[in-house]
Amino acid sequence: MKGIFISFEGPDGAGKTTQIKLLKDYLEKKGYEVLVTREPGGTNISEQIRSIILNKNNIEMNNITEAMLYAASRAQHVSELIKPSLEKGKIIISDRFVDSSIVYQGIGRNLGIDFVKSINDMAIQGIMPQITFLLKISPNEGLKRRFSSDECNRLDMEKVEFHNKVYEGYLELESLYPERIVGIDASRSIEKVHEEIIKIVEKKIYNV
Amino acid sequence: MKGIFISFEGPDGAGKTTQIKLLKDYLEKKGYEVLVTREPGGTNISEQIRSIILNKNNIEMNNITEAMLYAASRAQHVSELIKPSLEKGKIIISDRFVDSSIVYQGIGRNLGIDFVKSINDMAIQGIMPQITFLLKISPNEGLKRRFSSDECNRLDMEKVEFHNKVYEGYLELESLYPERIVGIDASRSIEKVHEEIIKIVEKKIYNV
Repeated sequence: MKGIFISFEGPDGAGKTTQIKLLKDYLEKKGYEVLVTREPGGTNISEQIRSIILNKNNIEMNNITEAMLYAASRAQHVSELIKPSLEKGKIIISDRFVDSSIVYQGIGRNLGIDFVKSINDMAIQGIMPQITFLLKISPNEGLKRRFSSDECNRLDMEKVEFHNKVYEGYLELESLYPERIVGIDASRSIEKVHEEIIKIVEKKIYNV
Repeated sequence: MKGIFISFEGPDGAGKTTQIKLLKDYLEKKGYEVLVTREPGGTNISEQIRSIILNKNNIEMNNITEAMLYAASRAQHVSELIKPSLEKGKIIISDRFVDSSIVYQGIGRNLGIDFVKSINDMAIQGIMPQITFLLKISPNEGLKRRFSSDECNRLDMEKVEFHNKVYEGYLELESLYPERIVGIDASRSIEKVHEEIIKIVEKKIYNV
């Protein structure tokens, strides 16, 4: 694989979208070909699956159904978009990837990390990010920012307890995979966060 | 579980819909509470997933995505409809169930029986039909009937070779699970096929 795959993780409201846009602009100015994508979604079929997952009316959705829909959406995303783009040497920046399923479905929904990992192993076909930025902000702060926007979806409506469990899960993953996952204090200013991110990305690009 | 779970399998065009309707009417006249359902589908969320799977425009769908969407749809179908209805003592008749995934995705798409079984084991939560009627008709004959109707979907458009593999897969399952799967010669008249089916169902009802 010639390209570089970067994912952004963290609670909704942590500022992923803003930071991804800033990083993209920065890298494009440096002459890199950058593809920004998101999960669930990123391809036509994956976006169709996304709209089922996030639809606020689908309140009767079973936890296993939900985990499988995320994995299905990811399988399409990897095979149709991420893998071919990496082969072409692009820098891919994805808003969420498999870590989200581990913490939201495996830990938040109590399905277990092993089950979620096993269905996703088939979906990702060996493709993992080289860098994952974990934007750290307390779940309460994230939800507050979220509810003041218009983006609120089915998962935002979960109890605070759920979001706390998810956040604890993220911190656990950070300590399990220190080589890949870089925790970033996202309570600071947009500029400060952006500066830290570009330093790490540049180091990666010039070392590879 | 107090109820009885019956599934119908076989190539499209074998007459499943017609036979299911006749069986339902027969059992209702005898005073049983009967629920007819189908896969993919059967619940609101599962039908949303069905429309992604069968949409003729989704030609770029990856085989793993497809298998996971079937499993997701089934997980919802079992947890929301089939399991609660069996607990209430109903007779459930489903147009297709897990055998379809084994033969279409596991064998037809070459994903392997083990992979398809493992994701579906989570989806079905131990629920399997007591009787599965395999309506046997040559794939060519089935497709001929199918293309003369308006129901043609993304899977009908597969090559004849695919449908032949699927049919061979069905015959293999029939020999592996003779206690559950009952092969029925569906090239005969609607009435003959119906008579054979009700004999087997009645035997099951009075023995249980």
